Amino acid sequence: MASSSKSRPILAFDLGGSQLRVGLVTAKGKVIGRTIEPTRAEEGPKRVIARIEGMGKALVVEHGTGKPIAVAAAVASPLDDRGTLHHPPNLAGWKTVPFKAMLARHFKLPVAMGNDATVAALGEHVFGDGRGVDDLVYLTVSTGIGGGVITGGRLLTGAWGMAGELGHIFLAPEGPLGKCGHRGCLESLACGEMIAERAKEAVEAGRKTSLAKLTPKAIKTKDVFEAAREGDIVTKEIVQAAATYLGRGIASLVHVFNPRKVILGGGVTKSWDLIQTTVEKTARGLLLPGFNKRLEIVRTRFGEDIGLLGATALAIRELQLK
Amino acid sequence: MASSSKSRPILAFDLGGSQLRVGLVTAKGKVIGRTIEPTRAEEGPKRVIARIEGMGKALVVEHGTGKPIAVAAAVASPLDDRGTLHHPPNLAGWKTVPFKAMLARHFKLPVAMGNDATVAALGEHVFGDGRGVDDLVYLTVSTGIGGGVITGGRLLTGAWGMAGELGHIFLAPEGPLGKCGHRGCLESLACGEMIAERAKEAVEAGRKTSLAKLTPKAIKTKDVFEAAREGDIVTKEIVQAAATYLGRGIASLVHVFNPRKVILGGGVTKSWDLIQTTVEKTARGLLLPGFNKRLEIVRTRFGEDIGLLGATALAIRELQLK
Repeated sequence: MASSSKSRPILAFDLGGSQLRVGLVTAKGKVIGRTIEPTRAEEGPKRVIARIEGMGKALVVEHGTGKPIAVAAAVASPLDDRGTLHHPPNLAGWKTVPFKAMLARHFKLPVAMGNDATVAALGEHVFGDGRGVDDLVYLTVSTGIGGGVITGGRLLTGAWGMAGELGHIFLAPEGPLGKCGHRGCLESLACGEMIAERAKEAVEAGRKTSLAKLTPKAIKTKDVFEAAREGDIVTKEIVQAAATYLGRGIASLVHVFNPRKVILGGGVTKSWDLIQTTVEKTARGLLLPGFNKRLEIVRTRFGEDIGLLGATALAIRELQLK
Repeated sequence: MASSSKSRPILAFDLGGSQLRVGLVTAKGKVIGRTIEPTRAEEGPKRVIARIEGMGKALVVEHGTGKPIAVAAAVASPLDDRGTLHHPPNLAGWKTVPFKAMLARHFKLPVAMGNDATVAALGEHVFGDGRGVDDLVYLTVSTGIGGGVITGGRLLTGAWGMAGELGHIFLAPEGPLGKCGHRGCLESLACGEMIAERAKEAVEAGRKTSLAKLTPKAIKTKDVFEAAREGDIVTKEIVQAAATYLGRGIASLVHVFNPRKVILGGGVTKSWDLIQTTVEKTARGLLLPGFNKRLEIVRTRFGEDIGLLGATALAIRELQLK
């Protein structure tokens, strides 16, 4: 312990739609410490980078580590192989942002950067339940929905680094309008923000729910899960509808990838006990014979640290750290 | 030419839901000759293998080649890495069939075997429009719908060889019942057999279509496309609905794989001129920014020989032929 906190860690961060999480992580995947702030994407990339630096410096002081040797970034955005973000639907106001280059200039350190859910798949493969599993799908169900895939032991990247946008598989012609501007993608049907949105609509429509005591605008995803947990019918329906679509999406991905494990993470899976049965029953019920038996569908054991660990796994691989 | 037909070819076959195609192919991807029969799956695997042998022998005599050096098989079935078929929905009555082992015993030759659409992706990558393209999705729209994927230059196989069942991505909660026993998969919405099925239903429902002159049971997919081509409204609607779902499925696959090319083949794409606009417009219209610009969506240049070429590409790779 003492030696790992004295050695020089990796400055890892996970920039999500709601939270900015900054941590110091060892190359062995031990999170020495982490600190969390709201993302505040509206401040723009430069201010966000300055805050990451400040949060990192405070952690170095608090834990008495050496200066970080590299920056490892997980970002909730489609991004290409040069580390340019492309219109992240969950980072309001960000369009085309050469974020990796900006980070390298600012920190004067080697930078590894990947999509948050993509690197989470790598984090599971290197540090978690995906060790020794050469074919796995990771799905993060958070403010938005993203994914990452290990196939044949390698991270799926695609022709220009944008593969794994699993939240944008199409599931319903009559589905609601998503943040991406299209109807019927998995994200529009099952992400945290949309679960809250459906609850707001229910309250506004005067449906009989325990959330009616809140002003619709104030309803958060966690309020919906709390109400459902307490037996509220309307919110239970909303949660189960989202879980059903998650199961359908997972069935699609299993037919596509034939993975041995599907690992779920992200804020919505904090309520895994409420959705697991529906997710798993729906997914398994749709599978062709032969896909089901050796398949496991599990929740990440890393909770909200998975982004930090994924970014670290990427940095170790790309920057040859050890 | 003379030398290639005198040398010993590969005995390739493509066992589809409707047709059994047997060919002699050189290791350079030249189809020396091919012959076609109806599949007649109901005869069972043994009789089908005997027919393949007979068709192959006739081709060897006709083209004066040497005895085949290997058997290369493309089969319209989910199959695992031992070459066992699992409940092929398009080969009626076949359940769990150790087809590769049966072929090896029968022919006493090395056998390479893959799912028809999976190996088609490899055929494109080795011999076709996918040369030099390390990320491509191949989609066959035929009696059923299948797929194959090259990612990072490698054939996607999955944990136990069943990856690429792209016809079974879920697209519509209220979709029709597919041959797989589930509702709303791409195959149930857009494959050749289902296009014919929708036309039968339209005739039976008394809708005003030029196909009403046929007995519903006799309507084939090609009849539907012919009627649509001649301007028949009802069949045009059926064809465009299928094309729309194809586009939606392609959008999902592009978000998942970020391919540089999507290549379509199979009987339905004989009418590519009727569906291309809808397929491409729907797919591209659903894509997130960044996925579209360098993406090409094309039809295979190999027509119905693609299965033979795919099986050959697999044999070359697996059996180290040259």
